[in-house]
Amino acid sequence: MIKPLDNHVVLKVEKQNQEEKQVGGIYLAGAKEEKPNTAEVLAVGPGRVLENGNRVAPEVEVGQKVLFDKYAGSEVELDNQKYLVVRDTDLIAVID
Amino acid sequence: MIKPLDNHVVLKVEKQNQEEKQVGGIYLAGAKEEKPNTAEVLAVGPGRVLENGNRVAPEVEVGQKVLFDKYAGSEVELDNQKYLVVRDTDLIAVID
Amino acid sequence: MIKPLDNHVVLKVEKQNQEEKQVGGIYLAGAKEEKPNTAEVLAVGPGRVLENGNRVAPEVEVGQKVLFDKYAGSEVELDNQKYLVVRDTDLIAVID
Amino acid sequence: MIKPLDNHVVLKVEKQNQEEKQVGGIYLAGAKEEKPNTAEVLAVGPGRVLENGNRVAPEVEVGQKVLFDKYAGSEVELDNQKYLVVRDTDLIAVID
Amino acid sequence: MIKPLDNHVVLKVEKQNQEEKQVGGIYLAGAKEEKPNTAEVLAVGPGRVLENGNRVAPEVEVGQKVLFDKYAGSEVELDNQKYLVVRDTDLIAVID
Amino acid sequence: MIKPLDNHVVLKVEKQNQEEKQVGGIYLAGAKEEKPNTAEVLAVGPGRVLENGNRVAPEVEVGQKVLFDKYAGSEVELDNQKYLVVRDTDLIAVID
Amino acid sequence: MIKPLDNHVVLKVEKQNQEEKQVGGIYLAGAKEEKPNTAEVLAVGPGRVLENGNRVAPEVEVGQKVLFDKYAGSEVELDNQKYLVVRDTDLIAVID
Repeated sequence: MIKPLDNHVVLKVEKQNQEEKQVGGIYLAGAKEEKPNTAEVLAVGPGRVLENGNRVAPEVEVGQKVLFDKYAGSEVELDNQKYLVVRDTDLIAVID
Repeated sequence: MIKPLDNHVVLKVEKQNQEEKQVGGIYLAGAKEEKPNTAEVLAVGPGRVLENGNRVAPEVEVGQKVLFDKYAGSEVELDNQKYLVVRDTDLIAVID
Repeated sequence: MIKPLDNHVVLKVEKQNQEEKQVGGIYLAGAKEEKPNTAEVLAVGPGRVLENGNRVAPEVEVGQKVLFDKYAGSEVELDNQKYLVVRDTDLIAVID
Repeated sequence: MIKPLDNHVVLKVEKQNQEEKQVGGIYLAGAKEEKPNTAEVLAVGPGRVLENGNRVAPEVEVGQKVLFDKYAGSEVELDNQKYLVVRDTDLIAVID
Repeated sequence: MIKPLDNHVVLKVEKQNQEEKQVGGIYLAGAKEEKPNTAEVLAVGPGRVLENGNRVAPEVEVGQKVLFDKYAGSEVELDNQKYLVVRDTDLIAVID
Repeated sequence: MIKPLDNHVVLKVEKQNQEEKQVGGIYLAGAKEEKPNTAEVLAVGPGRVLENGNRVAPEVEVGQKVLFDKYAGSEVELDNQKYLVVRDTDLIAVID
Repeated sequence: MIKPLDNHVVLKVEKQNQEEKQVGGIYLAGAKEEKPNTAEVLAVGPGRVLENGNRVAPEVEVGQKVLFDKYAGSEVELDNQKYLVVRDTDLIAVID
């Protein structure tokens, strides 16, 4: 089992832009061509710590479908399954 | 349905500068030639979290027409419709 | 009507340095050669939000003549009129 | 014995991506190809100091297995054993 | 009349390093060769706003002679007179 | 006698990576090849000032053996002895 | 007389590394080869302003001998005497 720390969120990515995979070059962050991907939330950390010591609980819950910034996060492989771990600040919206 | 997180705002862009589409090069942020676009607000997130833990509700409401920074945000495609998701800090003004 | 958000201020620029318009190259920010322009304040936003949640009202009012940083802001065209939208932090002084 | 300061965490890295060792070039931070490594937590510092003077205790404990950002931290050699020291902000998740 | 905003200070520069004027190249900030200039304070803004909402009044007063960072500020021309507008953080010392 | 200011810490470096001395090129910060050095703490400053005005006393004491970031700090020569002065944020761990 | 503003400190530099004067190139900040210089404190500003509005009085006093970061500050010439003005954050230690 994977328990995210801080404001990390574990995602199961649903579909990926295939055509983007061929591109090996440098991309410009923020360009309109970047289309965010959708994913399912698998696990949610306790949230980032504010300067007053409180934590901000992430706005998402396990099982929700979310839009996220395609270029964020790190791929994790556990039990032959690939996951993506992002910070909740890389999440854009919940879709339902 | 799309529910924006944090200070994200979903926009339906009304018109785009056609002549800009041909340009594939690098643009200089802040140059006066950048003309912001207008859009209709479709959905508004709860706002960003301040260091004291409170959220700042975005100043805009669903249905308003807004000016926004043309180079901000990510394109989202849902049900064959294209939307733009920006942070409320990328919004410049309400037009009515 | 245009209602600025956050600490945005809408300006009607009075005169522009003509000789600068020819220059297409890169300029060095902060160099003494940069002469700020003057403009009339047309509309003022509610101000930026401090970390304690309060807003700082911009120091300027509609109708005032201001000096502003020439390289700041975005051009806006509304009803065939061109305006400049800057943040109040780009304003230097009021002239009366 | 090694006692980490601030929010440092001492890790015993379990496996390393062998194929990455050959690469001597520059890597692009944040690219999806970066797979985080797993490690065992050997020692934990008291945590970073907030602006109000309190410390944020790291979320991990000695003996836990963690995922961490592969490019973070410094290698330390003590008594002919190699360890990795990272900040707790470089830890992604606990695995159990 | 010119009324500075925020922590802007209007200066009447007394003498300028003539030999520097020829140099059109890039200078290295912080190098010891940079000699600050002296100027007379003509007008002082209300000061910058702290995160608690209070303003920090600039330490200088109209009529004082000050040392300032030579590469700071913007030149302003009003009524055929040239002034320099800097932020009070660019002022180094009062000379009397 | 040398009395460090702010969060400076005076170190007597014990051993240095000899092979590194030949390298005159640029190193990439954060690469795993950077091995921190060990040193003895000779003097400790009162600590950095927080935004609430309190100081954070460094976690180390005179006489302790510490691990520190090899590329941090400035060499100081006093009475024909060479010392290294770092900030306490460059210290990684105490070894005992 | 020179009265430093904010956290500026006026120094009378005692000796300078002669051999360094020939070097006209670029130096790498933080490299161990940078040896700080010693100087006498001639004047001290009231200190920098914290976000709560209080000032942090510099830790040094007029007449003290200090170590400072060699590449910090600006040279000032007053009454045919050369001084160096640094911020107190560029001071490393008091020597007595």
